[in-house]
Amino acid sequence: MSVTDELLANNARYAETFSGPLPLPPAKHVAVVACMDARLDVYRILGLDEGEAHVIRNAGGVVTDDEIRSLAISQRLLGTTEIILIHHTDCGMLTFTDDGFRQQIQTETGIKPEWAAEAFPDVDDDVRQSIARIRANPFVPNKDSIRGFVFDVATGKLNEVV
Amino acid sequence: MSVTDELLANNARYAETFSGPLPLPPAKHVAVVACMDARLDVYRILGLDEGEAHVIRNAGGVVTDDEIRSLAISQRLLGTTEIILIHHTDCGMLTFTDDGFRQQIQTETGIKPEWAAEAFPDVDDDVRQSIARIRANPFVPNKDSIRGFVFDVATGKLNEVV
Repeated sequence: MSVTDELLANNARYAETFSGPLPLPPAKHVAVVACMDARLDVYRILGLDEGEAHVIRNAGGVVTDDEIRSLAISQRLLGTTEIILIHHTDCGMLTFTDDGFRQQIQTETGIKPEWAAEAFPDVDDDVRQSIARIRANPFVPNKDSIRGFVFDVATGKLNEVV
Repeated sequence: MSVTDELLANNARYAETFSGPLPLPPAKHVAVVACMDARLDVYRILGLDEGEAHVIRNAGGVVTDDEIRSLAISQRLLGTTEIILIHHTDCGMLTFTDDGFRQQIQTETGIKPEWAAEAFPDVDDDVRQSIARIRANPFVPNKDSIRGFVFDVATGKLNEVV
């Protein structure tokens, strides 16, 4: 049995006590952008219930065109107004460089990715970078509440980056 | 008090009983790509514990360059081998068109986004499209287990798309 099959068995149990459907727009009008790291259970970290917030995640919790696309849809079509950014301690993005990663892929496949890997040497600085990218973007309309945090994987605490 | 402040108060309670840190690589060697929809609590839907799977999310759960970047990092640097794609019923991406959304932004801001909004008229077809994009990509090495599902927001069940 694959892990996927095992998780599907979990889903069958989840559905037994599920009650839906909830409305489509997020009830708390918040969008979260967080790292894909397995230790970040975003709903539990923020005490979110189903239906309350959009959750956008990728390697690093960085802001690229696809997060801008998601935030533009979230705010313009589904009414969110606040943005919460979450990076974390002990992040995999601190362990490599863009040059090294893209060269490794070129060596193995013969093709160099046309995108940046978005590795970063300092997690606080990259939270500030993510906020700056949103602030500078013309397609995300609601910028009054954009706050960035580093989740401590040892303590479970969100520490705000100023 | 903003919603962000309210969620930070929730986090303080979360941290009180938190025990960490867990290891960085996902214990179940799985990466999930899911829609950002607020009703999808991915950890609960799949019965995932903290530390078990990467979770990548965006508007629609579609596969663009940024999801390829995240999957490449997940598989090449952090050892995941299985991919689970999750779209869902009643998705916001079914309610608009790329042309209309990009035109609306151009009308309001004077600038047309240089990216596709990735709206889709059929959720099952778009799951197949996401799988096809991963299969065709040279940078994601492990393609033996890529399975796609539609989460039913009324029943809580994952239905596999073939």
